[in-house]
Amino acid sequence: MIKNRIKKLRELMKINKIDVYYVPTDDDHMSEYVADHFKSREYITGFTGSAGVCVITLKEAGLWTDGRYFTQAENQLKNSGVTLYKQRQAGVINFEDFIAEKLPKNGVLGFDGKVVNEMTKERLLSFIDKKNGKIVLDKDLIGEIWENREDIPLDKCFILADKYTGESSSKKIVRLREKMKEENSDVLIFSSLEDVCWLFNLRGSDVENTPLTYSYAILEKDSVTLYINSNKLDSKVNKELLKNNVVIKEYDEIQNDLYKLNNKVVWLEKSCLNSFLYSQINDTNTIIDKVNPTKLFRAVKNKIQIKNIRNAHLKDGIAMTKFLYYVKNNIGKEEMSEISVSEYLENLRRQQEGFITPSFNTISAYKGNAAMMHYSANEESNAILKPEGFLLVDSGGTYFDGTTDITRTITLGKISDEDKKLYTLVLKGMLSLMRAKFLYGTTGINLDILARGPLWQHDIDYQCGTGHGVGFVMSVHEGPQNIRWGHNPNAAVIEEGMVVTDEPGVYIANKIGIRIENELLAVNLTKNFYGQFMGFETITYCPIDLDAVDVKYLTNEDLETLNSYHKMVFEKISPFLDKKEKAWLKIQTRMIKK
Amino acid sequence: MIKNRIKKLRELMKINKIDVYYVPTDDDHMSEYVADHFKSREYITGFTGSAGVCVITLKEAGLWTDGRYFTQAENQLKNSGVTLYKQRQAGVINFEDFIAEKLPKNGVLGFDGKVVNEMTKERLLSFIDKKNGKIVLDKDLIGEIWENREDIPLDKCFILADKYTGESSSKKIVRLREKMKEENSDVLIFSSLEDVCWLFNLRGSDVENTPLTYSYAILEKDSVTLYINSNKLDSKVNKELLKNNVVIKEYDEIQNDLYKLNNKVVWLEKSCLNSFLYSQINDTNTIIDKVNPTKLFRAVKNKIQIKNIRNAHLKDGIAMTKFLYYVKNNIGKEEMSEISVSEYLENLRRQQEGFITPSFNTISAYKGNAAMMHYSANEESNAILKPEGFLLVDSGGTYFDGTTDITRTITLGKISDEDKKLYTLVLKGMLSLMRAKFLYGTTGINLDILARGPLWQHDIDYQCGTGHGVGFVMSVHEGPQNIRWGHNPNAAVIEEGMVVTDEPGVYIANKIGIRIENELLAVNLTKNFYGQFMGFETITYCPIDLDAVDVKYLTNEDLETLNSYHKMVFEKISPFLDKKEKAWLKIQTRMIKK
Repeated sequence: MIKNRIKKLRELMKINKIDVYYVPTDDDHMSEYVADHFKSREYITGFTGSAGVCVITLKEAGLWTDGRYFTQAENQLKNSGVTLYKQRQAGVINFEDFIAEKLPKNGVLGFDGKVVNEMTKERLLSFIDKKNGKIVLDKDLIGEIWENREDIPLDKCFILADKYTGESSSKKIVRLREKMKEENSDVLIFSSLEDVCWLFNLRGSDVENTPLTYSYAILEKDSVTLYINSNKLDSKVNKELLKNNVVIKEYDEIQNDLYKLNNKVVWLEKSCLNSFLYSQINDTNTIIDKVNPTKLFRAVKNKIQIKNIRNAHLKDGIAMTKFLYYVKNNIGKEEMSEISVSEYLENLRRQQEGFITPSFNTISAYKGNAAMMHYSANEESNAILKPEGFLLVDSGGTYFDGTTDITRTITLGKISDEDKKLYTLVLKGMLSLMRAKFLYGTTGINLDILARGPLWQHDIDYQCGTGHGVGFVMSVHEGPQNIRWGHNPNAAVIEEGMVVTDEPGVYIANKIGIRIENELLAVNLTKNFYGQFMGFETITYCPIDLDAVDVKYLTNEDLETLNSYHKMVFEKISPFLDKKEKAWLKIQTRMIKK
Repeated sequence: MIKNRIKKLRELMKINKIDVYYVPTDDDHMSEYVADHFKSREYITGFTGSAGVCVITLKEAGLWTDGRYFTQAENQLKNSGVTLYKQRQAGVINFEDFIAEKLPKNGVLGFDGKVVNEMTKERLLSFIDKKNGKIVLDKDLIGEIWENREDIPLDKCFILADKYTGESSSKKIVRLREKMKEENSDVLIFSSLEDVCWLFNLRGSDVENTPLTYSYAILEKDSVTLYINSNKLDSKVNKELLKNNVVIKEYDEIQNDLYKLNNKVVWLEKSCLNSFLYSQINDTNTIIDKVNPTKLFRAVKNKIQIKNIRNAHLKDGIAMTKFLYYVKNNIGKEEMSEISVSEYLENLRRQQEGFITPSFNTISAYKGNAAMMHYSANEESNAILKPEGFLLVDSGGTYFDGTTDITRTITLGKISDEDKKLYTLVLKGMLSLMRAKFLYGTTGINLDILARGPLWQHDIDYQCGTGHGVGFVMSVHEGPQNIRWGHNPNAAVIEEGMVVTDEPGVYIANKIGIRIENELLAVNLTKNFYGQFMGFETITYCPIDLDAVDVKYLTNEDLETLNSYHKMVFEKISPFLDKKEKAWLKIQTRMIKK
């Protein structure tokens, strides 16, 4: 099937005189998760992971993806004719060099400019410069061969009340206009869905598990315009928007409005605005290519949000604890599969007040399946759980008062000493980051080794970051902050009010996957002669499976961190449990020592 | 005195129509330590630290220096009329902004372009751009008022034999020409003294404690030229240089040779070439502004160097151990001062084979004096040692087979529990970095928190990096690698064969200074699926004072690291001690546990 699609694509490439065709994973807004309409890369390769790009020449086809997806991609690309290129592995060509190498002299690189951001376009242009290559950016060839393609979603929107967001849209506009003034900017373009939704306190459900809505916005000194399909807005939402003097235009009209800009200082983000829209802005305008200030505003949660987030985590922790109680006490007694327990958990979340949607596709992965970091069980792969080995469940909920992301790996029965060692090293890393204190100015690059170090000491690595920012009733992965060790000249300083995940892991292909994930809220601690010390408040409340812990690998400091965490979990969660669950939790959160 | 000098300078500024005059710490080669001839900033402010810049307007005078020197600068600037600006402290203006603020519209910023590198010149130009400011770079006004200024040194040079350097000059030239070819460069300019000396395996003694010689070099495709005062070269050195077809010209001739360059691709380092020489290169040439490949070549030590370096450290460790034995056993029995013990130590080093010079001014600092990170005892400050409190000694030797840098802080008698706590936290950090394992690709930004974290956990910081690279029979501070946590987009990856210091500390003004410093050699360890794991071999062999350790703050892992280090120290050093010293070392390196 894939081979046939690629064949059709190549026919179109020949007709359009395109030598190399590039298919990324993005939608028109560079979103991480995209609606089915935009899954062109999946359509043409069969690979379903959330990250990766495909390059097709008249003779070859390649898929590039990162360490989280190597195992999954290897499986899904079998017999597709598409070669897997493992990103950032020694000796593996990157896709830009591949394009440059394969493009003939004076050749043409084609793509759908709506799903390729301007920065990437310019980078690709620099790579094919020596071949005197040309770019054609108005050809959605996948769209031409794709039968029964889904439409762009048109789901209804809603306004998230100020009691949840802690800040009205009008106040946000004031803050943003101050930033625009600092940059002497006339026009600020909102191309990321998160930015638009944050600005208007608007939410939708266009993308599975992410309460966003396909839209753009343009903020000017004296006006603000929302570009959205008007069918999505009911009278209540309309009224709310008009109250703030928001001009509402149809989604596609942004193209024309950008085309009409003249002699303006236009603030946009080349890494986020698609290259097709960018090409509509004429040269009389001055471009400021700088991250939208909304990104940092979104990342730093206000006091009302923080209060709400803690409450969302409390509800989520209750659901998770009840879930763990169920699995640990019923394994071997009733039939369970990866999918069935995942559904059981979702049902528990749905019973919590204000639940909107899971915050992403639950990863319920048994034994070797868990080695695939972003595994998603389907009917074919769905493993039956037995009273042995590890079950990894990475899941989260979006509630009106917050978004959660939590991973617990639990033993379903006997595990080996080696398994306990691996589990405990992961735990040790997680605890070490959790209790970190650091001076203001610190970034995730500085902190990563706290979580990763205990594994590195045993010659083990996890080929992904340690943590990511989490949105507020939005995307579960939101920057700019993260906890990663790799080179990043733009690494964001950890600010008070930011949320990051703390999720080290061990992944051994076909054998084992262990991850333990809590969310951490950055808080200010002592301020003294040396500066502002900061630390983390753990906002995930759920027991960690002590059955898998070998205390030999933990220091007294580690044990103190773990025990005091468990004490808090019991205090927070136990009032919401029935008698049996409560007794069980008491044991699960018992103090342990050497 | 200082006030008078500044008054004279201001008169010259007025005559030369200069509104703001800038005086950095550098020499013509941007060296860290400079010959007395170049100590203009010290001459005009009275501040003797090794880092800092001075800015003088017609009304104000300011000195900017970093955390290592705050206390010292405060003392030395008293009554000078020069204001201390603490670099990187919240709310403190940086000197570039100060210049921009103080410069009048269309004003003139002046400096001696020979001691200001081209990069700094261009940065300063960008800061004064909005004032339409002009730069005058050929006025050494300090030189004009400086009576009895020292000449640029003319000390004799020597060639460091291949058995020490492990690589002949001709082989180095081949490696460099390959790099030049990669960059399509015709001309590579050597402006840093370390680069020139490395290239020719040339050493001198122009700068106190640093075996460098004032010189430049230009490498072309088919020639290599050394610019140096010919009086420095005896017939043996001349012969050796001519063997490699080195063209020898007088030091100042480089100016003319740069002036004559036409239509060449010239590789230079704007951050290292002085702006006066840069101004001599005409526009027909194409400039590649990139770090000289020599810098990385120098940093990665070859096998012969590594063997030699270990031997240098063995000799240095013997001297240090004998020194510690002497101080610990004679304190209270005979009179000792900061200076006397420092001389005693230097004498012990001089007795070692192949000793050339101390590698920097010994820091011998008692009690509160040690809070000044780069304290240098003088007759006035020289503290008498008593059998109580801490003595910090940071010192090193340059031998024909290597350069060392070591700090030990020892108790001279009773210390408080709080002192023990601080000492042990410093030690804990040092041990943690020492045993670190990490994947290839790691930089000092990732590693710093291992050493600093134990102090941060107790709301303490040291306001400097954790470690620096060390040269080979050259400068004691050499990059590009270091261990620092701050933002650095150019942070160097730790490569096998690099040497870094591991020296966390605690500094409380007027109270206490504790630093423990070992040198670490980066080595490759396991290579597996995840990549190349690396670690450190400790190459400093000298006991750490257990009298100051409170085991309560150490984990079993810390104790293992410490005990196995001490076991090695005893094995390496004891064969070179007399009976009493040996018995003492046995106790000093005893295994400790909780």
